[in-house]
Parts: sequence; C-alpha cells; structure tokens
Amino acid sequence: MAHDRALRVRRPGAPDLSSADTPAQWVGVDLGGTKVATGLVDPRGTLTGEARRLVHAAKGPPTVLRHVVAAARESVRSARSPPMGVGVGVAGQVHRATGTVMYAPNLKWKDFPLGAKLSEALGLPVAVSNDVVAVAWGEWLHGAGVGSNDIVCVFVGTGIGGGVVSGGRMLEGASSAAGEVGHTALVAGGRRCHCPNSGCLEAYAGGWAISERAREAALDDPRRGAPLVRAAGSVSAISPATVIALHRNGDPMATTIYRDTARYLSDGMVGIVNAFNPDRLILGGGVLDGWPELLPEVRRAVRSRCQPPAARAVHVLPAALGKEAGVVGSAAMARATLSTLGGRR
Amino acid sequence: MAHDRALRVRRPGAPDLSSADTPAQWVGVDLGGTKVATGLVDPRGTLTGEARRLVHAAKGPPTVLRHVVAAARESVRSARSPPMGVGVGVAGQVHRATGTVMYAPNLKWKDFPLGAKLSEALGLPVAVSNDVVAVAWGEWLHGAGVGSNDIVCVFVGTGIGGGVVSGGRMLEGASSAAGEVGHTALVAGGRRCHCPNSGCLEAYAGGWAISERAREAALDDPRRGAPLVRAAGSVSAISPATVIALHRNGDPMATTIYRDTARYLSDGMVGIVNAFNPDRLILGGGVLDGWPELLPEVRRAVRSRCQPPAARAVHVLPAALGKEAGVVGSAAMARATLSTLGGRR
Repeated sequence: MAHDRALRVRRPGAPDLSSADTPAQWVGVDLGGTKVATGLVDPRGTLTGEARRLVHAAKGPPTVLRHVVAAARESVRSARSPPMGVGVGVAGQVHRATGTVMYAPNLKWKDFPLGAKLSEALGLPVAVSNDVVAVAWGEWLHGAGVGSNDIVCVFVGTGIGGGVVSGGRMLEGASSAAGEVGHTALVAGGRRCHCPNSGCLEAYAGGWAISERAREAALDDPRRGAPLVRAAGSVSAISPATVIALHRNGDPMATTIYRDTARYLSDGMVGIVNAFNPDRLILGGGVLDGWPELLPEVRRAVRSRCQPPAARAVHVLPAALGKEAGVVGSAAMARATLSTLGGRR
Repeated sequence: MAHDRALRVRRPGAPDLSSADTPAQWVGVDLGGTKVATGLVDPRGTLTGEARRLVHAAKGPPTVLRHVVAAARESVRSARSPPMGVGVGVAGQVHRATGTVMYAPNLKWKDFPLGAKLSEALGLPVAVSNDVVAVAWGEWLHGAGVGSNDIVCVFVGTGIGGGVVSGGRMLEGASSAAGEVGHTALVAGGRRCHCPNSGCLEAYAGGWAISERAREAALDDPRRGAPLVRAAGSVSAISPATVIALHRNGDPMATTIYRDTARYLSDGMVGIVNAFNPDRLILGGGVLDGWPELLPEVRRAVRSRCQPPAARAVHVLPAALGKEAGVVGSAAMARATLSTLGGRR
C-alpha cells in the first residue's frame, strides 16, 4: 500500500537512503489497457529484468492482477537481492494515499485497490500513481529533469497529460490530480473535449484532436484532403501518423494541420510556463516523437511571449527516457515516495 | 534581507515558533505606486498600529524608501515589544531570495535592493514578495484559506494575479514568478495582452480588459452604448465601475459585458483548477467586489466542467481579508518565511 501523500521526496542528487552494499532495486510496472511491462530499476535508473504480458481488461480485475503479478515476479527473478518495493503507473485516476485506482476507463476499473492487492501478492510495499505522473518522476530523477527543482513535464500522446515539480516536490493537489495541463483553457467555448469541458488544450493539440481536426478538414475540402484519405484508407482512419507522414511529403493540408498544432501547443505552453514558472519545460509523447520540430517552435514561443522572469528562467527540452519511461518512472516514483519509510514493510 | 527561498513555512495551525509571553508582532507593508500602508500584525492576523503615507514615485527610490521607513516606524511605535520582522508586498517582480525589486513599473524601479535597504534602516529582518503573493499568504494564514494545504488565490483587479499553495507550501517557481494565473491562455491568438502574449485570461477578464471591451462595444454600437458613454462622460472614461453600475440598472450592453466576463473567468478558472487541483479556489479583487455574483457562476462552472477528481475536491470561496489584506498578508508572509530563522538577526 502506498503512503506517498504523507512523505516528501528527497532532492534529486541527494544521497540514496537505501542499502549501500548491493544497489537497491525497485520494480517498475507500466500498466496500460492492453499490456503490462515490468522491470527492475536501480537507483541510477538502469533497467534490467524486463517482462511483458498482454492484458485482457475484459476478463476483469482479478485476471489483470494475475498478469501484473506474474510479470512482476518474472522481473524480480533476476534480482540479486529482494527488491525494495514496487511502483505502478496506471492510465487513470489514482488515490495515491491508498493506491486505489479510482477510475481507469481503459481497464474498465472503478475503485480497485490495486496497491493493497499487489502488495499482498508480492509481499512488497507498493506505490501507485497515474502513468503520466510516473513518467514525470522518471524524467525528473533520471531524464531531462535531473538536478532541477522546478519542472513541468508535458506528454502529448492521444491525450495530453503532465507532471509538475515545484520547489523540489512533485505536486499532488488535493485529490492526486495536479498537473492536468491538457485540460487548461486554450480556446474559451471552443472544441468539445473528452473531459466535461470545451476548449481545452487537449481538444486541439492531443492526438485524438489532431485526428479529428484532420478528418474535419478532409471532409470540408475533399479535393485537398484526398491525399490524407488515400493514405489512411478512409476518412475515419486518418490518424496523427497519417498527418505526420503526409506533412513529411509536403502535403498542403497536412502542413496546415501541423502549423495549427504548433500554434496551439505553443499558446498552451506559454500559459503553463507563466503559471508554474519552471526552469525546465520537458516535452514528450507520441506526437512530439513524430513531430520533433514542434519543440523548437514551442521554445521560441515561450522565450518571446512568456512574462520576462518566466521566459528567462525556462529551458525547453525533449523528454529523455524514451520507450522505457513508464517502467523506469514507476520505479523512480516508488523509490522516491516509499524509501523514506526505510524500504520493506 | 529575506531568505525565504531557502526556508519552508510551517503548516497553518501549527504552533507558533515565536516568543510565548507577549504575542510576537510583525510589521506588514503594502507598497503601491501611490501610497504605502503599514501596520503591526499579531500571529492571529489582528492588525494594529496602522500608518499611511503618500508615495511620490517620481522622486526616486531614496524618497520612497524614506516614506516607507517613516510609516513603518510609526506603526512600530505602538508595539509593546520590538517586532520580529517586516514583510513587504510590492506591485512588481521581486527576487525573493534577496528582497530585490527587479521590476516595478508603478514605482519606476529596476533592481532596487528594497529588502537590504529597509533591513538596514529598521534594524529588522525583512522579507519582500509580490503584493498579490503577499495577499495570498494572508488569505492562507488568516483568511478564506485557513487550514487548507492546497489553495489557488485569484485576484481580479485591474490585472489578474494569484498565489498558489500546493502540498502546504506557497509555490515560488524558478524565478519567484509562479502563480501568474492571469497570463494563462484563454483564447489562443486572441486579444492583445499587456504582457508579451495575446489571448491571456487577463486580456479578457482583467479590469483593464473589461474597460477595453466595453469601449469597443460602445464604439461598435453607439445607440446601444449611449448609456455607458453618458454615465462615464466619454467613451475613453468607461471603466469597470461604469459597467458594473449600469449592469445593476439592467442596461443591456453592460449586461452582455457582465455575461461575457462571467464566461471568460469561468473558463479560465476551470483550467486553473484542473492544473493545480486545489481544495479551495479563493477569488478576490475589485472586479469581484463589484460583481460578487461572478463567484457563484465560477463555482457552477468549476463543479460541472472540471475533471471529476478536481471538481469534487474544490470549494470556491470569496477572499476574506478585505481592505487590510495587503498589510496583513505581508506580515503573514514575513512571519511564515522568516520565523524559522528564530526571529531577529
């Protein structure tokens, strides 16, 4: 069971509190709607003992839990000493003090006590957080955020999520939901979001919104949209990947969609940097991987349009951990939030 | 000289660390572009020994400093024991670690070492912060935020400023500029702001923007705008007070401006609550004083349109400290950030 709400993480770079002889290892678990990945992570963020399982969410929580336990055990098998604990990043809303997954639409879970169940099965302390927050932990302790006390991480994938470190602490908020930067205003009264609001940043620059905008553009102007429809197979199959590929080939409609996306993301990030005043804005996720040229555009916007003290302080950097970010981040989150308890209970 | 960057404030409600026999008092200084107000504030937030001076910014920093020192000394005269220290809230950008005012357009100051100069003159430790942040300290420790660890304070006056408490700490950011919620995006690519950006919340819902929108509306539709122009004396004299007064009388154009303002402020606050996940959103400032009905509108929007965990956690409350907020808040800020040093140096 996780207790991180009551705890404070040590600063990055501060001495590790865990055992000095064998490097203490932590199990990281990246639990998504279709698969679970696990691994052993040492205090330097090095990943070993990886394992993967498919997740059949439809079969219900006990089956999913069995897969998670099996993958975690497989990872642990390669450890030279018992790991210190387990960190789980899960796509959904997590009550971090108890490790309960309050709502995870991909897994079809509501109020499932994942932390308690997993801790019981593995005999190890378990910390659970939202998957994007776990990745932010990883970037802070092992990635592009090392050494900083004031970071905003923004991940632009299908949705837009984030994690914020301020004054050397990961912000949690009153109900473990701080850092939801994808649902700040971008165009008041604008496009319908997947959340209860309209006009959110995610509703313009998230992957699903890029698809939606591209489909609408193709329907509005079928002649200009024909290359997108042809490449995707149908209007409804147009995805961010389609748009990115055609933008690479100089397709005019895809280029317009790219430019609008860059503008939306930049406008959103200027406001976020003004609000949080980080010294690093770390950008990652599938949309940034496909369009890395978004990053210098955001950098220019932030430098020229933020309030001067915020603009001068901030560096805009790409996320550094890549594909393993979920596992490494979940382990880092567990290490930071559980290790002040003295490790195993 | 202030050292609050390196220090951590104790939680509200925690025992006071200062002397137990006579209640320790702190001097609060609210330094604006035209006047300075000072007072003695005890640990419960009670204000005594008030003093005021006009400030002649044009006469330069030494003259302004003399007025501040004179007012502070007048306040101190009524103290039964020497005060513990001095807190100054100043409209501008402050380097909180050194107490230097980096930029204060109203005072025409650039890089003026206010904390050091004032500490030298008064023989007391001095903490300096932005005036809105000082008011947020006051609301947290003595006003609508007492007992909470996660607060967003938003003050809608001529501009829009704020202060954010997260996890029991006032956020500072990398350059003492965290909490600038007035300069988050509201309408991407929209109205020009007074900051280097466009489309900020302040450019729609701040007092200066309400005036600007009202003047534009009156020029666009002179017949419908005639009552506003008549009440103000001229188009360029239309102020938020004009609009508020005419809205009270049922004037259609003023009513439209009110409704738009409510929508803009609500849209902005939904995003801010999603980003910070506070359990209290505290709204104050002249525009809220004039239009208290904005508060229930924001409350409804936040409850119905924030992400569910954020919506469930938050209470929307009016600021509680009123006219004395600047002095009380500055003293509270000094007490919280200086008192762990053991008082006087």
